[in-house]
Amino acid sequence: MRIGIIGGGAIGLLFASHLSENHRVTLYTHTAEQASIINHEGIRLIVDGESRLLAGIVSKSLDEGISDEDLLIMAVKQYHLPQILPRINDIQVPLLFLQNGYGHISYLKQLQSQAIYVGVVEHGALKHDLNTVEHTGLGITRIASFKGELEQLSLVNEMFDQFPFTKSEDYHTMLVDKLVVNSVINPLTAILAVENGGLITNAYYYQLFQALFEEISGILEIQNRTESFEHVKSVCMATAENRSSMLTDLENGRKTEIDAILGHILSEAKSKGKSDCLTSSLYKMVKGKESQGG
Amino acid sequence: MRIGIIGGGAIGLLFASHLSENHRVTLYTHTAEQASIINHEGIRLIVDGESRLLAGIVSKSLDEGISDEDLLIMAVKQYHLPQILPRINDIQVPLLFLQNGYGHISYLKQLQSQAIYVGVVEHGALKHDLNTVEHTGLGITRIASFKGELEQLSLVNEMFDQFPFTKSEDYHTMLVDKLVVNSVINPLTAILAVENGGLITNAYYYQLFQALFEEISGILEIQNRTESFEHVKSVCMATAENRSSMLTDLENGRKTEIDAILGHILSEAKSKGKSDCLTSSLYKMVKGKESQGG
Repeated sequence: MRIGIIGGGAIGLLFASHLSENHRVTLYTHTAEQASIINHEGIRLIVDGESRLLAGIVSKSLDEGISDEDLLIMAVKQYHLPQILPRINDIQVPLLFLQNGYGHISYLKQLQSQAIYVGVVEHGALKHDLNTVEHTGLGITRIASFKGELEQLSLVNEMFDQFPFTKSEDYHTMLVDKLVVNSVINPLTAILAVENGGLITNAYYYQLFQALFEEISGILEIQNRTESFEHVKSVCMATAENRSSMLTDLENGRKTEIDAILGHILSEAKSKGKSDCLTSSLYKMVKGKESQGG
Repeated sequence: MRIGIIGGGAIGLLFASHLSENHRVTLYTHTAEQASIINHEGIRLIVDGESRLLAGIVSKSLDEGISDEDLLIMAVKQYHLPQILPRINDIQVPLLFLQNGYGHISYLKQLQSQAIYVGVVEHGALKHDLNTVEHTGLGITRIASFKGELEQLSLVNEMFDQFPFTKSEDYHTMLVDKLVVNSVINPLTAILAVENGGLITNAYYYQLFQALFEEISGILEIQNRTESFEHVKSVCMATAENRSSMLTDLENGRKTEIDAILGHILSEAKSKGKSDCLTSSLYKMVKGKESQGG
């Protein structure tokens, strides 16, 4: 199958590396420089300290246009989607969106493709340079259908070495589950500058963790709160040594995904008239730090 | 006049230096080591980059007991007061308390002295080492009576070079005014890791600054809110380049004054049944950072 992946960040490089085992992958990058490096040197994938060079991947700058593909995977951050949408608006190819948060769902209705899927990536990945990615945490990619039959997406039935996919029945529940995890762990770790595990082991941070979960699960009207809370906690403990993406984004003076993550929750709170004191304070803290730069 | 000053921190050293111009000062320290250094080398006071050595100050470890004094000034942090109180419980000498916050007021009622004053220090001071203090910001010391005649405290009518005193009518208003300033500026700068001015110039931080002022002035039932808000803002701008004491305490892994400052506000909120979401979140953030250590 011909798979086009849009976005040369950590997730784009990780997907290109693993999917190139079974498929003809084209990676569409923002810059011609990155495409040229990948075409000349391949992509270097680091797993458990061992480095593998993958040479069969073609890379093109997105400005060169999108070739014929059998599946197009959007691996850009949510805040970059508006720039990508005009290029895929009329495309009839199956589309898979891997963004965090929930805000991107509103974009999908305007697309012409009859097969639109959304995914939630639970892998850890770190981009070292333009063509090197480290697979820092082996996880899973959950996929659900937004439009069209999930079974028609062959990816979900394939076996990849160290890169499993799994099917989710309901895209809303799948995205909201991930949103709750991200919206509790990311802003707190970013502001408190601790590894994920610190939110559980530090008694004061744990109180903030509980209070933020309470507020957010109330805003999102999560049904099974005890189960959801235990899930967030278990993710925190399973990734105890990790620094969240939002923390490392702030540390490196990069834009964070705060709008995709807390922005959606704040607009839900507003439309439902619910209290959002802690969410809104953390939003302002992260936005303020972001605007301070590196 | 014989003046005893208890506490060899920045404020104790600053007061000892300036008051020794006109008075016989004894500085009571926590450690015998600090007393010995001061007795051998004097106190070095740095103002505007110029260093002056003050040799006439006697220093004693507090464990040696308190000598006869005409005035005793408590220059320890509020969280150290409980250790000092048993030593001054029965003393009949006039007492002056320079602590931040409001919580120490509850201690004063049990003291036997008939002349008890409270002060608010608006100087900037930085302790360089055991006998060196820098006067980083020339301010004022406000003094009000808790018990007894303010006029009997000759200090408030004396002229010191670069070290003015002023009288306040009402200790409650005086302490609450300072408490509002400290409770808005200190926790936010400590958590956001910015200089005081950053709370005004960063648009997101300014929203937090406004929200925290609203919440705290509501809890403390401040009468003249517009005036009070402008006062906090003007302090922030006048000290724009300063890093708050709470920020530098956290940066150096020291205990902060968070309990004296936000602790009192939280107990007021609780007893009045008022919302304290932002105050309580900031309290937990600072306590959590404090418990992480340096």
